[in-house]
Amino acid sequence: MPNAYLPLTCQHFTVACSFTNMIQIFTYQQLFDFTNAIFQKMGCSSVHAQTATTALLSADIRGIDSHGVARLSGYVRLWQAQRINTSPNIRIVHETPSTAVVDGDAGLGLVVAPFAMNIAIQKSQTVGTGWVSVKNSNHFGIAGYHAMLALQHDMIGMAMTNASALVAPTFSKERMLGTNPIAVAIPAGKQPPFVADFATTTAANGKLEILQRQNAQTPLGWVQDENGNSTTDAHILKKQGALLPLGSDKEHGSHKGYALGSIVDIFSAVLSGASYGPWAPPFPAYVPMPVNMPGEGLGHFLGAMRIDAFRPADEFKQHMDNWIERFRNATPINEHEKVLIPGDPERKMETDRLTKGIPLVDSVVADLALVAQTFDVDFI
Amino acid sequence: MPNAYLPLTCQHFTVACSFTNMIQIFTYQQLFDFTNAIFQKMGCSSVHAQTATTALLSADIRGIDSHGVARLSGYVRLWQAQRINTSPNIRIVHETPSTAVVDGDAGLGLVVAPFAMNIAIQKSQTVGTGWVSVKNSNHFGIAGYHAMLALQHDMIGMAMTNASALVAPTFSKERMLGTNPIAVAIPAGKQPPFVADFATTTAANGKLEILQRQNAQTPLGWVQDENGNSTTDAHILKKQGALLPLGSDKEHGSHKGYALGSIVDIFSAVLSGASYGPWAPPFPAYVPMPVNMPGEGLGHFLGAMRIDAFRPADEFKQHMDNWIERFRNATPINEHEKVLIPGDPERKMETDRLTKGIPLVDSVVADLALVAQTFDVDFI
Repeated sequence: MPNAYLPLTCQHFTVACSFTNMIQIFTYQQLFDFTNAIFQKMGCSSVHAQTATTALLSADIRGIDSHGVARLSGYVRLWQAQRINTSPNIRIVHETPSTAVVDGDAGLGLVVAPFAMNIAIQKSQTVGTGWVSVKNSNHFGIAGYHAMLALQHDMIGMAMTNASALVAPTFSKERMLGTNPIAVAIPAGKQPPFVADFATTTAANGKLEILQRQNAQTPLGWVQDENGNSTTDAHILKKQGALLPLGSDKEHGSHKGYALGSIVDIFSAVLSGASYGPWAPPFPAYVPMPVNMPGEGLGHFLGAMRIDAFRPADEFKQHMDNWIERFRNATPINEHEKVLIPGDPERKMETDRLTKGIPLVDSVVADLALVAQTFDVDFI
Repeated sequence: MPNAYLPLTCQHFTVACSFTNMIQIFTYQQLFDFTNAIFQKMGCSSVHAQTATTALLSADIRGIDSHGVARLSGYVRLWQAQRINTSPNIRIVHETPSTAVVDGDAGLGLVVAPFAMNIAIQKSQTVGTGWVSVKNSNHFGIAGYHAMLALQHDMIGMAMTNASALVAPTFSKERMLGTNPIAVAIPAGKQPPFVADFATTTAANGKLEILQRQNAQTPLGWVQDENGNSTTDAHILKKQGALLPLGSDKEHGSHKGYALGSIVDIFSAVLSGASYGPWAPPFPAYVPMPVNMPGEGLGHFLGAMRIDAFRPADEFKQHMDNWIERFRNATPINEHEKVLIPGDPERKMETDRLTKGIPLVDSVVADLALVAQTFDVDFI
C-alpha cells in the first residue's frame, strides 16, 4: 500500500499553475518490485526485467515523471500489439575498433540501450572512445540514464534517440521529427557530475501533458496549430498541431533546434538503419505504424569517451570542479535564484525521492492497477 | 579595383531592416591574394598562409560576413599584441587510437583547427572515428569549414570551439560563456550535404553587429542588460549586457542552450587544457587577457566518423537523400517559403558569390586598406 497522501504541487515547472491533485507515495523498492514483476510477466528474462526496471524508474527518481513508471502501461500495450519482443537476440551487426551498429531485434529500448552503451564503454576502454548506433529498438526511457552509465568508468557518456514525429521544422506545418533528446554526462571530482538531458524542442512533451491534465494553456512558443499558427492550446497535438523546435521561431533560432533534432535523427536512425523522420514508429500502440518505413524500428546513438584518452582523469576532474564552482557562483539576477549546473535539479529530486518516496498521481496509480489486473499480479 | 557598387540589402537576416549602405564587390581571387599576402607578411609560411586564407574566406563565400575577411584586421591586432604565434610548432601532446590532444602553440586557429581535423580524419580512417581536443589556439573562423573537411572522405565531420564570454547562463547576469558554435557536416548522395553550423545562442554576435551598424533594435529574447533585464538595445554588450543562450528564457528552454554552450566549452577547453568559461581569451586585442587563466589559449573540439564504420556508405547516402528530399517536401506553412535543409542558405550564397563576387561594406574595405598600409602591401 502507498505510504501517504499529499497534494501535488508543481514546483518543478516554470508554467504557472495552482491546481492540486491527489497523489500517492510509493517507495522505490515498491515500484521496482512491481515493475520488475510486470516485465517478467511480459516474457523478459529476470536479467532483462531488472535492467529495464532500473532504466525506467531512473526517470521517476530524477523527477522526469512523464518517462517513468507512468509509461509502463504503454510498454505493455506495445507488447500486446506485438511491437515489442521481450526475448530479443540483441547483437552487433557491424563494428570497427571504435564503432558498432546494434540490432535491437525489436526489444525494449530499456534493455537494448544499456547493451549498446556497454559496447561503447568497452570500445572506449580499448581505443579511447566508443560510438554505437542502434536500429530496431523501442522507447528507451530517459536519455540521461544511459549517458550516466559511463560516469563510473571515468568516461563522458552521450545518449540520444529518435522518436515519433511531433515536431514541425522551421517553416513546416507538418510534423517531421520526434522530441529527439540529447544527454551528455561528464564526470567531476568533488563536485557531482555535469548531466545535461534535454529534448531538442522548446518544451518536452511531458510538460505539455501536465498542462493538459490541468486544462491549462501553454506559453506562446511551445506549440503551433495545424496551419502553423501560434497557439497556447495544450491539447493541440491531438488536433494535428506540433511541438516547436528549441528556439520557438525563426527569429529566436528555431532553425538551430530543428538542426539539433535532425542530427539526433540521423545519428540514431540513418547511421544504423532504423526508421527516421516522419516514419519513426509511434509509442502509443493505438497509432498505426507508418507505411513504407525506410528502416527497422526506433534508433538510438550512444557514445563514451575515456577522460584519460585526452588528459589525466584527476587533472580533468580538478578543472571540472573549478568549472562547476565558478558557474555555480556566477552573479545571479535574483539573489534567491542561483545559477544551476545541468543535473542539479534532478540530483536534488533523487535525494528527496529516495528518502521520501515517489509520488504518483491518481490516474497513473489507476493505470498501474489495471496493468496488475491484466497480468494477475498483486498491485503493491 | 572592385568590380562594381551596389546597395547592400539584408535579405539573409530575419530582422526587419530597410537601410542601404555602399558596398564594393570583390572576386574571391582578389580577396584570397590579398589575405594570403597579409598572413605571409605576419610571418606565416606560404602553406600556413594558404590554409588560413582558405578557412577565413570560407565564411565570406558562405555569407557569414562577420567571420570572414572583415576579421582580418582583428587577427593582425592580435598578432601585434603578441597573442598569435605565426610560426607555431603545432603538435600532438597525447593520443590514443581514436583521440588526440593538440597544442596549437598559440597559432592561428585558422591553421591549428585544420591540422587537428586532419588528425581526426586519419584516426577515423584507422579505427572508425577520430576526436581531437585542442588547446592553446585562437579564433578558428567558422566551425562549418572545419566540419566540412570530413565530407570528401565519406565521413561525418564535427567542429566546435569555445570563445570569450558574452553569454549569460539561465538565472545569471554575469557573462560566462562564448557563443560557442557547433557544426555538423553529413554527406549525402545526389543531394548536397547536410551542414548545420550555429552559435549556441539565440542570435549570433554577427547578427547583433549588423543591427549596431544600422542603429536598429534587436527582437526581445536576444540580449539582456547588466541587471539581467530584457532589452532590445543592440549596443548592450558594450554596457555589460549579455547575449542569451538558445531558448532566450527559462520558459522557452534557455537552460538547454546554456547546457549546449557548456558542453562545447568543456569538450573544447576542459578536455584539452585550454582556458574555459569566463577565462577564455578575448578576440579583440584591446581587451585585457583574463587574470588567473586556468588553461592555455582558446580550445576547439573536432571529430570525424567514417560512414562505413556504421553501414555501407552508398546505402547511407541513399537514405540521406531520402531524408533530405522528404524534409524538403514537408508541407510548408507558406507556399512561398519551403522547408530548408541545414546548409541550404549558405550553399546558395556560395554559388552566388563565386560567380557574382563578394560584397564588402565600406567600413570593412577601409579597414582592409589600413591593413594594406600597415604591411606596405598594395590593396587589391
